[in-house]
Amino acid sequence: MARIVMKFGGTSVADIDRIRNVAKHVKREIDGGNQVAVVLSAMSGTTNQLIEWTREASPMHDAREYDAIVASGEQITIGLLSVILQSMGINARSWLGWQIPIKTSNIHGAARIEDIDGTEIIKRMQNESQVAVIAGFQGLASDGRITTLGRGGSDTTAVAIAAAIKADICDIYTDVNGVYTTDPRIVPNAKKLNRISYEEMLEMASLGAKVLLTRSVELAMIHKVRLAVRSSFEDPETARPTRDSDFTNLTTGISNHPGTLVCDEDEIMEQELVSGITYSKDEAKVTLVNISDKPGISARIFTPLSEANINVDMIVQNVSEDGKYTNMTFTVPEGDLDKALKVIEDNADNIGYEKILSATSIVKISVIGVGMRSHAGVAAKMFETLAKKGINIIAITTSEIKVSVLIDAEYIELAVRALHTAYDLDVN
Amino acid sequence: MARIVMKFGGTSVADIDRIRNVAKHVKREIDGGNQVAVVLSAMSGTTNQLIEWTREASPMHDAREYDAIVASGEQITIGLLSVILQSMGINARSWLGWQIPIKTSNIHGAARIEDIDGTEIIKRMQNESQVAVIAGFQGLASDGRITTLGRGGSDTTAVAIAAAIKADICDIYTDVNGVYTTDPRIVPNAKKLNRISYEEMLEMASLGAKVLLTRSVELAMIHKVRLAVRSSFEDPETARPTRDSDFTNLTTGISNHPGTLVCDEDEIMEQELVSGITYSKDEAKVTLVNISDKPGISARIFTPLSEANINVDMIVQNVSEDGKYTNMTFTVPEGDLDKALKVIEDNADNIGYEKILSATSIVKISVIGVGMRSHAGVAAKMFETLAKKGINIIAITTSEIKVSVLIDAEYIELAVRALHTAYDLDVN
Repeated sequence: MARIVMKFGGTSVADIDRIRNVAKHVKREIDGGNQVAVVLSAMSGTTNQLIEWTREASPMHDAREYDAIVASGEQITIGLLSVILQSMGINARSWLGWQIPIKTSNIHGAARIEDIDGTEIIKRMQNESQVAVIAGFQGLASDGRITTLGRGGSDTTAVAIAAAIKADICDIYTDVNGVYTTDPRIVPNAKKLNRISYEEMLEMASLGAKVLLTRSVELAMIHKVRLAVRSSFEDPETARPTRDSDFTNLTTGISNHPGTLVCDEDEIMEQELVSGITYSKDEAKVTLVNISDKPGISARIFTPLSEANINVDMIVQNVSEDGKYTNMTFTVPEGDLDKALKVIEDNADNIGYEKILSATSIVKISVIGVGMRSHAGVAAKMFETLAKKGINIIAITTSEIKVSVLIDAEYIELAVRALHTAYDLDVN
Repeated sequence: MARIVMKFGGTSVADIDRIRNVAKHVKREIDGGNQVAVVLSAMSGTTNQLIEWTREASPMHDAREYDAIVASGEQITIGLLSVILQSMGINARSWLGWQIPIKTSNIHGAARIEDIDGTEIIKRMQNESQVAVIAGFQGLASDGRITTLGRGGSDTTAVAIAAAIKADICDIYTDVNGVYTTDPRIVPNAKKLNRISYEEMLEMASLGAKVLLTRSVELAMIHKVRLAVRSSFEDPETARPTRDSDFTNLTTGISNHPGTLVCDEDEIMEQELVSGITYSKDEAKVTLVNISDKPGISARIFTPLSEANINVDMIVQNVSEDGKYTNMTFTVPEGDLDKALKVIEDNADNIGYEKILSATSIVKISVIGVGMRSHAGVAAKMFETLAKKGINIIAITTSEIKVSVLIDAEYIELAVRALHTAYDLDVN
């Protein structure tokens, strides 16, 4: 017996038939002896329609009204799932954010969850085997008004509920069956990960693996909530329910979970040296040619960028031959490139440079693994592998659990495949 | 300055353009110096779609979940209207049933409003000129769950809010510009009534004038809330705002209100003898031929019908010639005819009759007016008028303020027109 949270997104509840399918997933877990809370998004399309109406009503709208409007979508799906579960003989009830309540900050449109009292939900699970069907994405501000949590809000709700009811696991049902060592579209024999640590997942999430959003992984890490990514396309009746052994078997370190388990490093016995290879195409490169190579020049460039909320990632400064002039190259998110160029040009007199170059035909490739903390040579193998393929490295950054390099975009597939093989990640 | 409640139904808020039109109606009243609360329905079609989904989910659904699902519709329209009002420079905020709260009974799907604390809304009207934009049709049960009020719920909300905030008037905006002396489709020169008493309106409502539902008129009568029916198709900018003189001028007894004012009899100086002629086609006639004319026979017929929740309206018992056998004719709502026939047949042995006849080709015509309390001869004029046109009266019922007759359906237009003329109701 386990206590679990199951989260389903908008495409999984897009119509009555799909909600019925979700109900079968829930029934399987109930029949397997588990206590279940379900967190749902709105029907796919609904939230966008509501946002569109609100914008049409007024482009400059009150965020409190926006929240009240868009929060109505989840109200429908949780009611419908409850009705279907009841018709299957399962005790279920819907919970809106304000009913639990899910207390949040007052930042409408992007509220943060502050407190959830899970007592009543736990009591009903224990005493009545009642399934709590909870609206994702929404909460209640201290002024008594509805808030929404912003992008990825339903995942955040699921993790926060899991923490509040002390769930053993929070299963996020998605359109993929787990987290892979890299993008299977580039490397067809990419391997599904059995377990991955929060830290690694955070790097995977922020570097382009779209499965889980950074925010929900961070929240799970803080509250030590085991997260799992699993497929909503599995046959809901033949798939097997979640079991204690899916996450408590620390002897083998192998999870039986059908998807990928995201958990504390301590729960993963045999750490792989490298867990995955990710890439990000949303990078742009800016090069300032012939700036004066003198103290304080970095501050003159990067302070105005920072003030403009532009996140500079990698920085390379070429040593100048005569010690007078140098080139400075850095990367910014592709969407911020125009803004960044304008900031630099506005500060041209203060910085002093000959010309400015930019390119978006670059890509960042990262090798991720908590194992590299205790093993040297991960970065060296990366550089060596890329060099062998004739791929030039434009810039490098490293952290405790990742090494990232910037390369020309045209080498992306070649690089990812070569690294995937080099770190022994290919499925045999 | 007046404090007013403005209620708009589903067709008035069917899309953003129409909600914008509602906002202009509200602005006119604000510009006219009034304090305003608005009560809205869901976009037309939305509630039906939600009900359909719920039925599709399960025909036998939990009424509490049904309520949570269908109450989401008003959440959207009140948010959108608030956003639009704000964009016009008007301070406005949306209120859901649970936020005010509108406390109701626990009868989900058909809850009754029990209590509304209007203090906060009044305070904001007075201190901030804030417009309260309130979700119709919904409330909060004592167990913390959303309730809905059933058919005509938004009108009921509007009246209850008007009582709670001590509004001078509750303007119900509809697709007609008032209450008429009779159906203008039958009598083109029917007259729009300037004022009408609650009692008369109740008879008009229950006898087929679809403008206001009985329930909201009853509530208005109990709480002495002045109701008005006015058109949502008036040009919102050139129409004139509601004024004190619309309902406080008791000297002339004439309201300046652009629609029809429904108010206490005391507020209407010159009572018309007859205010209107209504008809109802939803009647069915049942005749039991040759029942034994003995004591207790009525109970044997009508007790089982009453137990089956069938509302018997008119009853005629023909006196038998030999004192042994008689015919009994009564009317039931057309929709209940099959059920009524079955009840009678199930009790055939106990009642004892030769045969049973039924017909739906009948209509009930009513003459309504509080003035008939103090004037004799209203009924006599009715019978005389119908007789002159050769119309046979099948049955008659009377109350303090109405006389109803049952006639063959084919005479309906002839009868209504003749009576409308006979009581001097035609527009000159």
